[in-house]
Amino acid sequence: MRVGVLTGGGDCPGLNAVIRGIVRKGVQEYGYVFTGFRDGWRGPLDGDVVRLDVPAVRGILPRGGTILGSSRTDPLKVENGIRRIKENLAKHEVHALIAIGGEGTLGVAALLSDEYGVPCVGVPKTIDNDLSATDYTFGFDTAVGIATEAIDRLHTTAESHRRVLVCEVMGRHSGWIALHSGLAGGANVILIPEQRFDLEQVCAWITSRFKASYAPIVVVAEGAMPKDGDLVLKDESLDPFGHVRLSGVGEWLAKEIEKRTGKETRTTVLGHIQRGGTPSAFDRWLATRFGLHAIDCVREGDFGTMVALRGTGIVRVPLAEATVRLKTVEPELYAEAGVFFG
Amino acid sequence: MRVGVLTGGGDCPGLNAVIRGIVRKGVQEYGYVFTGFRDGWRGPLDGDVVRLDVPAVRGILPRGGTILGSSRTDPLKVENGIRRIKENLAKHEVHALIAIGGEGTLGVAALLSDEYGVPCVGVPKTIDNDLSATDYTFGFDTAVGIATEAIDRLHTTAESHRRVLVCEVMGRHSGWIALHSGLAGGANVILIPEQRFDLEQVCAWITSRFKASYAPIVVVAEGAMPKDGDLVLKDESLDPFGHVRLSGVGEWLAKEIEKRTGKETRTTVLGHIQRGGTPSAFDRWLATRFGLHAIDCVREGDFGTMVALRGTGIVRVPLAEATVRLKTVEPELYAEAGVFFG
Amino acid sequence: MRVGVLTGGGDCPGLNAVIRGIVRKGVQEYGYVFTGFRDGWRGPLDGDVVRLDVPAVRGILPRGGTILGSSRTDPLKVENGIRRIKENLAKHEVHALIAIGGEGTLGVAALLSDEYGVPCVGVPKTIDNDLSATDYTFGFDTAVGIATEAIDRLHTTAESHRRVLVCEVMGRHSGWIALHSGLAGGANVILIPEQRFDLEQVCAWITSRFKASYAPIVVVAEGAMPKDGDLVLKDESLDPFGHVRLSGVGEWLAKEIEKRTGKETRTTVLGHIQRGGTPSAFDRWLATRFGLHAIDCVREGDFGTMVALRGTGIVRVPLAEATVRLKTVEPELYAEAGVFFG
Amino acid sequence: MRVGVLTGGGDCPGLNAVIRGIVRKGVQEYGYVFTGFRDGWRGPLDGDVVRLDVPAVRGILPRGGTILGSSRTDPLKVENGIRRIKENLAKHEVHALIAIGGEGTLGVAALLSDEYGVPCVGVPKTIDNDLSATDYTFGFDTAVGIATEAIDRLHTTAESHRRVLVCEVMGRHSGWIALHSGLAGGANVILIPEQRFDLEQVCAWITSRFKASYAPIVVVAEGAMPKDGDLVLKDESLDPFGHVRLSGVGEWLAKEIEKRTGKETRTTVLGHIQRGGTPSAFDRWLATRFGLHAIDCVREGDFGTMVALRGTGIVRVPLAEATVRLKTVEPELYAEAGVFFG
Repeated sequence: MRVGVLTGGGDCPGLNAVIRGIVRKGVQEYGYVFTGFRDGWRGPLDGDVVRLDVPAVRGILPRGGTILGSSRTDPLKVENGIRRIKENLAKHEVHALIAIGGEGTLGVAALLSDEYGVPCVGVPKTIDNDLSATDYTFGFDTAVGIATEAIDRLHTTAESHRRVLVCEVMGRHSGWIALHSGLAGGANVILIPEQRFDLEQVCAWITSRFKASYAPIVVVAEGAMPKDGDLVLKDESLDPFGHVRLSGVGEWLAKEIEKRTGKETRTTVLGHIQRGGTPSAFDRWLATRFGLHAIDCVREGDFGTMVALRGTGIVRVPLAEATVRLKTVEPELYAEAGVFFG
Repeated sequence: MRVGVLTGGGDCPGLNAVIRGIVRKGVQEYGYVFTGFRDGWRGPLDGDVVRLDVPAVRGILPRGGTILGSSRTDPLKVENGIRRIKENLAKHEVHALIAIGGEGTLGVAALLSDEYGVPCVGVPKTIDNDLSATDYTFGFDTAVGIATEAIDRLHTTAESHRRVLVCEVMGRHSGWIALHSGLAGGANVILIPEQRFDLEQVCAWITSRFKASYAPIVVVAEGAMPKDGDLVLKDESLDPFGHVRLSGVGEWLAKEIEKRTGKETRTTVLGHIQRGGTPSAFDRWLATRFGLHAIDCVREGDFGTMVALRGTGIVRVPLAEATVRLKTVEPELYAEAGVFFG
Repeated sequence: MRVGVLTGGGDCPGLNAVIRGIVRKGVQEYGYVFTGFRDGWRGPLDGDVVRLDVPAVRGILPRGGTILGSSRTDPLKVENGIRRIKENLAKHEVHALIAIGGEGTLGVAALLSDEYGVPCVGVPKTIDNDLSATDYTFGFDTAVGIATEAIDRLHTTAESHRRVLVCEVMGRHSGWIALHSGLAGGANVILIPEQRFDLEQVCAWITSRFKASYAPIVVVAEGAMPKDGDLVLKDESLDPFGHVRLSGVGEWLAKEIEKRTGKETRTTVLGHIQRGGTPSAFDRWLATRFGLHAIDCVREGDFGTMVALRGTGIVRVPLAEATVRLKTVEPELYAEAGVFFG
Repeated sequence: MRVGVLTGGGDCPGLNAVIRGIVRKGVQEYGYVFTGFRDGWRGPLDGDVVRLDVPAVRGILPRGGTILGSSRTDPLKVENGIRRIKENLAKHEVHALIAIGGEGTLGVAALLSDEYGVPCVGVPKTIDNDLSATDYTFGFDTAVGIATEAIDRLHTTAESHRRVLVCEVMGRHSGWIALHSGLAGGANVILIPEQRFDLEQVCAWITSRFKASYAPIVVVAEGAMPKDGDLVLKDESLDPFGHVRLSGVGEWLAKEIEKRTGKETRTTVLGHIQRGGTPSAFDRWLATRFGLHAIDCVREGDFGTMVALRGTGIVRVPLAEATVRLKTVEPELYAEAGVFFG
């Protein structure tokens, strides 16, 4: 039995732990052999493979990124994409495929499995934690930890200089990272994409905060938007070199706050450091268990499924359903955090 | 409405976050006032109180330990203990009590609430994560993170010197910290209290590991025991200064491994560093939410209950049931980790 | 004997450790009393003081920022500034002043001491490490550590996605943080203000790097400039909200690299997280020793001097000379790092 | 030109950074080829070699330990040791040797170079920082950082439980790690091998500390000894399994303190975690520079020398003199720290 493995989409701490879990259990307990496909769906499309055995996964548990490489290649948008994948799987004698990725990657896996008879198992991956079928995804805990540590650091500058500090974190469509790191970091304002924010209210919180002893920290998800319009993302002026400007919400917010409250305000955009580096212990544990259970699915012929976390246990859900609904921050949960605003 | 708060038992990262959550919400949303009792049940026993208002909880979120102090004082073993507590609550006009602690602390709270008419709400705290009523307790994630980082560090020495490294972690009655940190740290042997270990098997794993490229790491919970007897804990010889010896299982194991495999073996006992310092982002989040929900219990008059985590939500369970059963590592879960042994 | 203490300029991990060292030794060994002035020179200007005794400095060693607050207020630019300072020192019976700060703060201290008979001792503070009179300044090691950890994290994204990652670090006039963190983080290109960079050469290094196995990391100091002109800092177009644009060199560089090499390129601007949070062990050690030696200067009546690190020892240098020359990265040292470029 | 490289003695964060610096500069700038010898002097003794080229050193900068392995093999104690080394160097056509190690390793290199005509260059390595010829050695900063973080964590337990916490750190012959981490961690007592301690004085400090708000932390180097005798190290009783007992000074001290002050006291022995894991930014920088300068020595034919740090510069010293004198903590420096005791 030969099993293919690929990782698609943005990189995420824990990918290597999944791969290691799959290979260690597959080889040692089930006697499987493995083929790694390079760069997500580009691998099976182009027949680009890489050796994947026990020595290949040695020492990768604490390493971020993915030894298989990744890409956002979508085989559905490639001519004869599905056929080429099927041909390459046949050529390499790959009998089953484990796809580790987000909505896009898993959507292709669902289609391949349900429509085209390619036995696929999915492992969910989104640093944003916005997949409804699972309590948590690996990478999220690491990202929240990095953001929280950064917010901890910003407190001292805010305090010493009596400045407002705006910290922009990841989260285009959901505010999980902002909410968790904001709460853990003791932010005084948390803004998320799920709920348009009122700039007046934000400024009122900031002003009231200055009356207490500390200067405020504002945590804002990159996808958060003001109530009054889509101003932020429409910023398409050209810079002196002819590039299109992409002014983030964090920078925009800082300027507005400074203008309206008269308080010196600074922005930090955490960016890519949130998704790199060694995974947290929780993410290594979750990713390893996802890997172990994914290869069990293969063993049991349970294809078209995705592994997921529910409480403390790993369950299986249909791939087709798994990626349908975005998991966003419920209004009640966001309201709960509101006690710390201002 | 005046609410008392106390923290009992061993210290645990996140205690301060709970206290802050309780006070911030209680003051700002419900207009409550608070009295802190010092050093667990000793506080209400002796009427030893401390100011607990919004300024008092400022800046404590990232700090380990507890601003209220802690102790293992058991009022049931103190003459007129219950009566003294009731008198002191009356004297300080405390109408409800939130007790943050483990089995012992919460057992007293259950009794006070159910038998003596003292309105109590419990918040579970055990760094060992061995309370059956909740998926996780705060402090555990921090401890696992610290242990995992230590194991990461031990790998390099094991590798460079081709030594066996034994790492003893917390866990007198349950192996959660050992299992999670062992898996996350890529340990080659994990030994837990729930299952007596076979020294021959441990040595066989170690010997086989040396045939692959890396030297082995053994993670052992302090409460793990060999199959052959209770040797370890019976070590009561005197040292040259007349003190009783307390040889831990880690040190014992290292000597036995060295003797039987001929491989140089070293031990590290992590000890108290596992329970100190700043809480992880996850623990701050969980502890904060426990605090917010505990004061909601008070608000709703829902006494005799304990807050608990189920999946991603906070629920309430009866205090009396909450502490009855120890949550130990199930054999299946331990078996799952076995693929990485040897 | 009453001694005043103030902290001026940008905040910097270690300021509190200096303050604690001064107060602990001053009180315990010399029986001095202290007055804290708030917000740098604004404190003595406005007579804004804060209690500064042993309890006030308890627990501040590991905390970033400064309990005294800071500002960039320059008394030389304030009407009657010097006179007001002298009057307030007299009013508060402050006989000597310890000023902790950078070029600006210490320049005032030098003037006060040398021209106006105010006994001052200086403690150097610059996170950029660009003061010629001392081997290192506290805060620098912490900043380099944070930047290095960030670069470590960026490697995994660069590798998994075969992208160029540009990391902009602090350093407006000197490249110390860029050079140290770039070397420690294994950057493939390091750009510093001391030497204008050749964009063609940068792109050549990047292209050559892609032929080896890893994707490149470019570390650039915020003050680095291209050979061809001052383009970067002259960017003064308006954004849609009428704010002046401040496009950093990192962002500019990423766009240019992408355009010229065709490789996907991303930027991370580390910003304020480099100067916040708990100081590194080295910075706590250095700052503490600076504090201990500064109060010794007061004790010995050695005013108009600044403490400095030379090798492993603390020495004293005249305040007036201390801040004259910027310490920049020597060409030979920068050339030494060049072996890792490309 | 073929150059051999070996790493001897205990492992130390930064060894890989030295190796990488040597190889990158040697190959790229001087066109050298390299032979790695495995496990210190055992490599050239047995002719045990390993490939060492640019791909071999890729990605090792942030990794602790040594890719060459290490041992404490002393060729002077092996029959025909020197002859066998010379034969193997000749056989592998190695023209020069870079030895990275401590006193023992470098002593052999000095002898080989000065007496037997084997061109050697030395790179100093001691985590204890006790080599007189250099301001700092790599690994030391990492160890101090780890110890400081542990002490930070112990504070919260000491505080919450009003306990004494004893933290035993590395340092058999010198107290550098204890002194630096003790100062950086805010310890209330620091005990070093250079100065026998008075148990009565230690207990007096502890008792006085309890009168202030915090519970005390005692940092003790493993080689520290009480004034009254050699009790600690003479502990050679047998445990129930027939092993010789090695009771450390930390454990001994905790028992004595508890007995004499009546205060609950706990010990943590940091052990091997101090020498493993990723090197700090400072250590990577220093180790890298040592490597670059060591290969320059080879290039210039400057054999029998060792690279060393003086201030911020790298210098060369004669190998023979370099290891003669242990660098211990001067009484004045230790006295300086005394202001924080009690």
